[in-house]
Amino acid sequence: MLQQIITTFRPYLDQVDRYIEGKLSTDIPLLDSVERHVMASNGKRIRPVLHLLSCLVCGEVTQANIIVAAISEFIHTATLLHDDVIDNSTTRRGKPTVNNLWGNELSVMVGDYFYTLSINSLIEAGNIEVLRIFSGATQAMTEGEIIQRENMGNTQLAFDEYLDIIRRKTAVLFSACCRSAAVIAGYDQDEANRWGTFGENLGIAFQLIDDLLDYTGSQVSTGKQQFTDLNECKLTMPLLHAIARANSEEVAEIRTILQNPVKSDADMAAVLRYVSRSGGIDATRELAATYCRNAVANLVTFSESPHYQLIGILANYILQRSR
Amino acid sequence: MLQQIITTFRPYLDQVDRYIEGKLSTDIPLLDSVERHVMASNGKRIRPVLHLLSCLVCGEVTQANIIVAAISEFIHTATLLHDDVIDNSTTRRGKPTVNNLWGNELSVMVGDYFYTLSINSLIEAGNIEVLRIFSGATQAMTEGEIIQRENMGNTQLAFDEYLDIIRRKTAVLFSACCRSAAVIAGYDQDEANRWGTFGENLGIAFQLIDDLLDYTGSQVSTGKQQFTDLNECKLTMPLLHAIARANSEEVAEIRTILQNPVKSDADMAAVLRYVSRSGGIDATRELAATYCRNAVANLVTFSESPHYQLIGILANYILQRSR
Repeated sequence: MLQQIITTFRPYLDQVDRYIEGKLSTDIPLLDSVERHVMASNGKRIRPVLHLLSCLVCGEVTQANIIVAAISEFIHTATLLHDDVIDNSTTRRGKPTVNNLWGNELSVMVGDYFYTLSINSLIEAGNIEVLRIFSGATQAMTEGEIIQRENMGNTQLAFDEYLDIIRRKTAVLFSACCRSAAVIAGYDQDEANRWGTFGENLGIAFQLIDDLLDYTGSQVSTGKQQFTDLNECKLTMPLLHAIARANSEEVAEIRTILQNPVKSDADMAAVLRYVSRSGGIDATRELAATYCRNAVANLVTFSESPHYQLIGILANYILQRSR
Repeated sequence: MLQQIITTFRPYLDQVDRYIEGKLSTDIPLLDSVERHVMASNGKRIRPVLHLLSCLVCGEVTQANIIVAAISEFIHTATLLHDDVIDNSTTRRGKPTVNNLWGNELSVMVGDYFYTLSINSLIEAGNIEVLRIFSGATQAMTEGEIIQRENMGNTQLAFDEYLDIIRRKTAVLFSACCRSAAVIAGYDQDEANRWGTFGENLGIAFQLIDDLLDYTGSQVSTGKQQFTDLNECKLTMPLLHAIARANSEEVAEIRTILQNPVKSDADMAAVLRYVSRSGGIDATRELAATYCRNAVANLVTFSESPHYQLIGILANYILQRSR
């Protein structure tokens, strides 16, 4: 992540890491091993950073914020563990996945453990409104995954429905990270909504770039296999853009490729050609940029904050990231 | 379940079913289909009954109790959905499992959905202490599953550790059902603990009988395949009892059978012979009876309640059940 963000947040992230470390020592050796493998895999920590940034702009970072920052990473980790089972992924962040090393069972169980740990940590933190925000977010995330699954291989997926999927599966947690900061800082419902909308827009942009990187990123830079979405028959913006501009023969070809249980390199290349030719890559990046601009515009009332500029820097990072 | 219990609880269970039905109508058709399949599969509803029984003995059944009864079934259902993935089960309660019909992915996702639904329903119900009880229980249940996995095929599993596993994976939820009834009824910490201990003892008895039925029950009566635990290399009381009484040669044979990736009918018969000869079946049933007696003894202070006798009837049912 960008140097200025890292420098600003390092002391807080160290506190978050210490809190996480404290939660990862159980009386169950197998659980500890799996947890440490997952948490040591050097994630971007974008959700904790987003919460901490929101706190700083709203006022200050308190001990309650450190806990919330940590549990945002726990919830994210839980979904990764279950996603890797769902998608049969073998690598994540350049390292073998838990299901690859220990089997699907452990990935399901430890994902469950991270979920329950999140809820219990939030109960411990004692702010029922914050608990409600994150608990609602986890439900929406699960719904997003199920709707996505329902639409696997559906070349007629409406663009609005696609946006609804990425809103639920990714943006609601970003939204929760920001809204909870405003709630803890004591802001009223209107301001909390503003922060929630900021996070939601940023989250949609984040997922759009994620979906883009699945087409344009290499495994070396992203740590994930390229064309994972395509292999899993997930239709995301780059391809939806291409389908909307393809003639019926071309759509039929795309559909045939999607239906192939094993997709060849030639299949991938063909789809990438449709995407590129339609301008799907640029359109996705542009839409992400629009969501980022809208996100930042929501917070113009906070422009007096000494940390306000960090918002733009983070939004920029989300747009430019290559992993 | 026994006629007297059914008659007493039918009106309340109808309310529970209506609450559940209301929660199962989402805007996601695929989710609704899976949920209905799971909830229609005619489970024993033992956890809701246990909560309602505790409420009646403590005083009365309120709307908050109906919600808690329903979420105890949601949490249980979530664990079944994930267990079926973990154990690769194909049938449950005599019907195909979700992972069998829709794949592991859906079983993981809908399990997650039931978890988040439980927490959100409890937040909605608004009693933070009850939320803490059930949220703590779900964490313990996950821990129990992981410890069980850690000890797969471990013929040296200590008996205390086995009891700890079944306490976490089963008894804490039974305990939560009873303790929460006392908390909602306004009893103090001591009385709540008494109810918690009652539920825990009953839960251990319930799981002991479950582990017994895996050896003695037929698929027709239990709705599950026989010898599932053995196939999954889970060492439960009947076999632990046999191992403790076997000589080193016999233990070596049992270990060899456990290590067979595919266990033949002859393997199963050999293990069942060791179990029967050692008295493992009777010993398991006797221990369950002891736990039931201890459970009931905890509540002797409530013997004036007009519903007190139902406690003994339920405890008896748990001991005698064949599915």
